[in-house]
Amino acid sequence: MRIVGERINTSRKKINEAVEQRDAEYIQTDISAQLEAGAGLIDVNSGSRRASELDDLIWLIDVIQEAAPKVHLCLDSPNPEVLKAVVDRVNEVPMLNSTTAEKDRFVEMTPVIQSCECDVLALCIDDRGMPKSADQVYENASFLVPELEKLGVSRERIYLDTVLTAVSTGDDAALASFDINRRIHQNFKGVNTICGLSNVSFGLPNRSLINSVYIALAMESGLNAAICNPLNERLMETIFATDVLLGRDPWCQKYTSAIRSGRIKL
Amino acid sequence: MRIVGERINTSRKKINEAVEQRDAEYIQTDISAQLEAGAGLIDVNSGSRRASELDDLIWLIDVIQEAAPKVHLCLDSPNPEVLKAVVDRVNEVPMLNSTTAEKDRFVEMTPVIQSCECDVLALCIDDRGMPKSADQVYENASFLVPELEKLGVSRERIYLDTVLTAVSTGDDAALASFDINRRIHQNFKGVNTICGLSNVSFGLPNRSLINSVYIALAMESGLNAAICNPLNERLMETIFATDVLLGRDPWCQKYTSAIRSGRIKL
Repeated sequence: MRIVGERINTSRKKINEAVEQRDAEYIQTDISAQLEAGAGLIDVNSGSRRASELDDLIWLIDVIQEAAPKVHLCLDSPNPEVLKAVVDRVNEVPMLNSTTAEKDRFVEMTPVIQSCECDVLALCIDDRGMPKSADQVYENASFLVPELEKLGVSRERIYLDTVLTAVSTGDDAALASFDINRRIHQNFKGVNTICGLSNVSFGLPNRSLINSVYIALAMESGLNAAICNPLNERLMETIFATDVLLGRDPWCQKYTSAIRSGRIKL
Repeated sequence: MRIVGERINTSRKKINEAVEQRDAEYIQTDISAQLEAGAGLIDVNSGSRRASELDDLIWLIDVIQEAAPKVHLCLDSPNPEVLKAVVDRVNEVPMLNSTTAEKDRFVEMTPVIQSCECDVLALCIDDRGMPKSADQVYENASFLVPELEKLGVSRERIYLDTVLTAVSTGDDAALASFDINRRIHQNFKGVNTICGLSNVSFGLPNRSLINSVYIALAMESGLNAAICNPLNERLMETIFATDVLLGRDPWCQKYTSAIRSGRIKL
């Protein structure tokens, strides 16, 4: 399971303040905590600060890489020009967040994707807007995989975001996502699926509970990456336990090691 | 999800003491707590007290029914004669725990099963001992269902125990149980599957974590009953969340109601 830490986003008040004040220490402390908790990548997004997005993103990337030179960054912007301007700045293979099956967006992202070795996060939405069914998500996946392959992106580098929605607004939201995960992994072997985890619990109390149970069920259906908060202990310990139960942790070694290191509390 | 509360078992030290001292209040307090927490049935087992098992079981049944006259009991004994002696004592339809696919045991349990309207818990083991594979469990299920039907037990009254084992001693223990659940529900429509939940986490630290994640995954595979401790809050809230995510809680009504009543803590 690949965890993309979602915390460095200027839509969050404290991060916005830290960026505003160029408080490198605050950002670096957060990064250390996310990496220690098990993040495999760090999402970095200053898109809420339109006037200064690029400057802010460059500052964030530099500050983060100063503290963690080997970090994999998930470069996250609504603006392909911004992504293009920063891809050369990262030390390790980045994930580009995101392209979509929308005609214009796909075209705009093409040169960015071709400009470097990268993982590509591709949202399964098209010009019809938010998908209205699992079939529509799957249709978009079926467009994106071959088109990205034509650009030279191998399946192992493709992360299809299945556009997880809230169970509070649709009883079958999670079920549909499990169905999509299964269909994608069955029909596009090698491709990864990813979700914005907290979407599923929007509008409900005790979101941590819903998010954690969701990740276990989604992992069973094939989900292999998530954009989420790695500092949520319940979430991270659930991932360890799910690996044990799905036969992905031989002799429970990762699990017992996580107990010993305190990543799973007793 | 049907929860069979496992706490009233004389193999537990405090219950043994309460039975020894005929401490009705202790038993009744425990029963109230289990029912309030969501137990649909109460397992009652004095099998560890061989010399006085029947007398103790009768005392327990009377004490429990005094506090909760409408309770459904899961009458649990290694001795078919003991079960036969108490089936007439219960107010509501009991579950008989258990018959098996072992030749002698099945024959001994037959008159008990035929003596009353009851749910039947049937362990999928036979004279070869503990099953060595999912196929063997399924074979035993394939024997038990038609044989129980011949005795007049409808599928809705059959609870097949799939003999869940510890993931600490076999990486695929949980996976095998999911496979068995799916095969049973696909091929014997109407039959229930049940498990002794805590078996799965035997030998591991933080058993509550493993048990809770297991129940979510097992529910997705079709498990519809579990023998477990309903006073474990993490377990019970996981069941509520799983129902939400599997589309079994329209408009999240049960979930939000459980939040309001404090059964799910914030």
